[in-house]
Amino acid sequence: MVLNIRGSPSQGFMASNLFKRWYSVVPGSTIPASKRRFVPTSGTYPQGFKVSGTHVGVKASNTSFPDLALVVSDRPCNAAAVFTQNKFQAAPVLVSRANLQAQQSTNMRGVVINAGCANAVTGEGGLKDAKAMVSALGSCLDGENNAESILVMSTGVIGQRLPIDKIISGIPTGYKTLSHSHESWLTAATAICTTDTFPKLLSIKFELPSAPGVTYCLSGMAKGSGMIHPNMATLLGVLATDAPVHQQALSQMLKQSVDRSFNCISVDGDSSTNDTIAIFANGAAGGPQVGVSGQDFDHLSGILLEFSQKLSQLLVRDGEGATKFVRIRVRAARSQQSAKAIASSVARSPLVKTALYGKDANWGRILCAVGYTSGLTPEDVIPSSTSVSMGLPKDQGTVLKLLVNGEPEKVDESKAAELLENEDLEILITLNTGSEEADYWFCDFSHEYVTINGDYRT
Amino acid sequence: MVLNIRGSPSQGFMASNLFKRWYSVVPGSTIPASKRRFVPTSGTYPQGFKVSGTHVGVKASNTSFPDLALVVSDRPCNAAAVFTQNKFQAAPVLVSRANLQAQQSTNMRGVVINAGCANAVTGEGGLKDAKAMVSALGSCLDGENNAESILVMSTGVIGQRLPIDKIISGIPTGYKTLSHSHESWLTAATAICTTDTFPKLLSIKFELPSAPGVTYCLSGMAKGSGMIHPNMATLLGVLATDAPVHQQALSQMLKQSVDRSFNCISVDGDSSTNDTIAIFANGAAGGPQVGVSGQDFDHLSGILLEFSQKLSQLLVRDGEGATKFVRIRVRAARSQQSAKAIASSVARSPLVKTALYGKDANWGRILCAVGYTSGLTPEDVIPSSTSVSMGLPKDQGTVLKLLVNGEPEKVDESKAAELLENEDLEILITLNTGSEEADYWFCDFSHEYVTINGDYRT
Repeated sequence: MVLNIRGSPSQGFMASNLFKRWYSVVPGSTIPASKRRFVPTSGTYPQGFKVSGTHVGVKASNTSFPDLALVVSDRPCNAAAVFTQNKFQAAPVLVSRANLQAQQSTNMRGVVINAGCANAVTGEGGLKDAKAMVSALGSCLDGENNAESILVMSTGVIGQRLPIDKIISGIPTGYKTLSHSHESWLTAATAICTTDTFPKLLSIKFELPSAPGVTYCLSGMAKGSGMIHPNMATLLGVLATDAPVHQQALSQMLKQSVDRSFNCISVDGDSSTNDTIAIFANGAAGGPQVGVSGQDFDHLSGILLEFSQKLSQLLVRDGEGATKFVRIRVRAARSQQSAKAIASSVARSPLVKTALYGKDANWGRILCAVGYTSGLTPEDVIPSSTSVSMGLPKDQGTVLKLLVNGEPEKVDESKAAELLENEDLEILITLNTGSEEADYWFCDFSHEYVTINGDYRT
Repeated sequence: MVLNIRGSPSQGFMASNLFKRWYSVVPGSTIPASKRRFVPTSGTYPQGFKVSGTHVGVKASNTSFPDLALVVSDRPCNAAAVFTQNKFQAAPVLVSRANLQAQQSTNMRGVVINAGCANAVTGEGGLKDAKAMVSALGSCLDGENNAESILVMSTGVIGQRLPIDKIISGIPTGYKTLSHSHESWLTAATAICTTDTFPKLLSIKFELPSAPGVTYCLSGMAKGSGMIHPNMATLLGVLATDAPVHQQALSQMLKQSVDRSFNCISVDGDSSTNDTIAIFANGAAGGPQVGVSGQDFDHLSGILLEFSQKLSQLLVRDGEGATKFVRIRVRAARSQQSAKAIASSVARSPLVKTALYGKDANWGRILCAVGYTSGLTPEDVIPSSTSVSMGLPKDQGTVLKLLVNGEPEKVDESKAAELLENEDLEILITLNTGSEEADYWFCDFSHEYVTINGDYRT
């Protein structure tokens, strides 16, 4: 099997090198210099899918940036989605869920997304607006109304009604400009951004064991930079593949992947009313259908997991005001659940997050957050067998031991200071109470975070 | 029954006016002007208790401020304590719990407290240090070693050993300066502070139904300004009364009070390794003992609850970098547990906290935090029956309705802006799913919070 990244076809990257590519700035963009490396300059995208990004001005103050994205397949897709678990589910979440159910997750054709207003807590009127959006895109397809074959997502301020007329009139415009090009995917990924500083877009090529010689594509875009925490906090994501995948297989794979990617990141611990990750598989590349088990299923599951992790990590990279990108690895835990809960507790701790911002190797705060994780049994964490270290990702040479079996290490403060100058860090928590593990990604809390969020609505 | 505040004996305040007193600045203090009104200039304290605050220089950088506090009763007390639920319990927590158990919560004589170093995650050496502290104070009493009659508390940086020699030699010095005066109580309350900007000290007089004519005293000091969240986050508290109270009654009352006071406040959602609230009752004022039920028990329970709430609110007032003091009232909930969980979720949300700092009536974030409260059943929160409003404490006239039965209200932004200029605010969340309720107090997240915590250890 060969995993290629399209756009650099001469490079035969293997799976583990999937995302080592030449990122650089999008011409004319306002993307901060430090983030440009995360934006692809080229890509190849799944067959049969076309996308667009259009300016409609959902926010009156937005006079030029695209804020309406369409993703459309030229043929019916199997689809699956994971939605927010917030009790206040936004209108688009309710409509998308109902449509998927009505179509039994087959015969889906695409999604319409707006940024600038979340259409959340907008009562009956908001529900009508979300339905109008899917109807408008549905009407563009094959001259008939396919409203139920369309999903809808919205992101932005809560509690305000959409400027629905602008959006409805923008949808046919967006439909006319649909294209398969890298530029269109990038514009669509830009159109779903809110406080994001760069569009999150990835694409890969892969093969499947049962279809040697057939090259498939998987692409995905996502948005989110604040209010990010499991489960699915103001983050939207759309994945598309031209591989043929059974609906149940798709649903199962997506859930598994999201659990270990989009549900393992935290920017600020807030979960939103609108979060949705959807995947579409239209089978346009041919080959036998991937079923609910077997070699192809396992293979594609692995690819989807790695892809989802990379895509979700871009959200952490763009965490509001973030200056650090930190992976927590919890190891030797009694259960996967407790490992994830512990990682999440550390990732949410304002004291840990501000210490990282202040470049302070304050392991006491890390340990403290481990200790107050809710729902732990006495057997999950045993102080005298807990170890904590900090280091650079994939570099065993620079590991800084902070606590070994419950006893503090003498920390070389100059070595610690040097380590903490790095943007990318890793925290390793070894519990020695079992053999399960979890990975988690988060960012720091900075002055900038407070500025952005003290000032967002105005 | 008359509840008097000593120091202003001519004022016959009733219970509800308990804390309306003339606070003003302590001469020569460095307390910020805005906080001076929270520091009492006089008080009367329970008989038989003496206290002191001594400078020992736990932190080498502290060359003059008191950082060792002693509270000693001249006779044996019944006592009770509530400890942190963090898995990593500091040495002083372990020693205090063991001593209480050894003495069956009777025959207790006092507590020794240091600030500047938490003696947490310090292994066997730390345990030895904590034991040395109780032995040192125990040895001062009546010329014999009463180590087990003493509790110990520490607060400060985690993972560093105490400068134990300094502390041990400071204890007899502190013992020699023990006194019953207001000034000594204030110095002791100052000695337990870390990042606190003002000492938290309260005292009241009360009577009991079974002992008309006997005037009792209850006083308390507490510390904590960051890392505060249930259960019992780096907060220390010592309460003392000269009423005679059965040990079991004391334990039960303390638990009930803490659940609705110190466990209903949040500064940043972090719970520490050291939190302890202890109460001592020495019976020095005479009268019949308060038992585990009956009129006296109910009466004293009510007093202790109100006292604990007022004392715990001072911690929120001093929240690191706080500019707002906010009470959340959750009403008409299905259970007290769900009401408290919802209030806690809102109080922890960085997005709600930064919005308050930014003076933004962003009810969407409040609702969102209600919606992602963990552990709720579908019956606990029904979007279409949820209402949210904001206002000033105890002032129905300025209530700003934000959401009524799930439908957003048209908010007068100028009225909202005016309201949010106030330091003291109230958020009312009415669920209409039951008849239970909970109150909760928290503060905002400011740039200053990030500055303080990005920079604390250095």
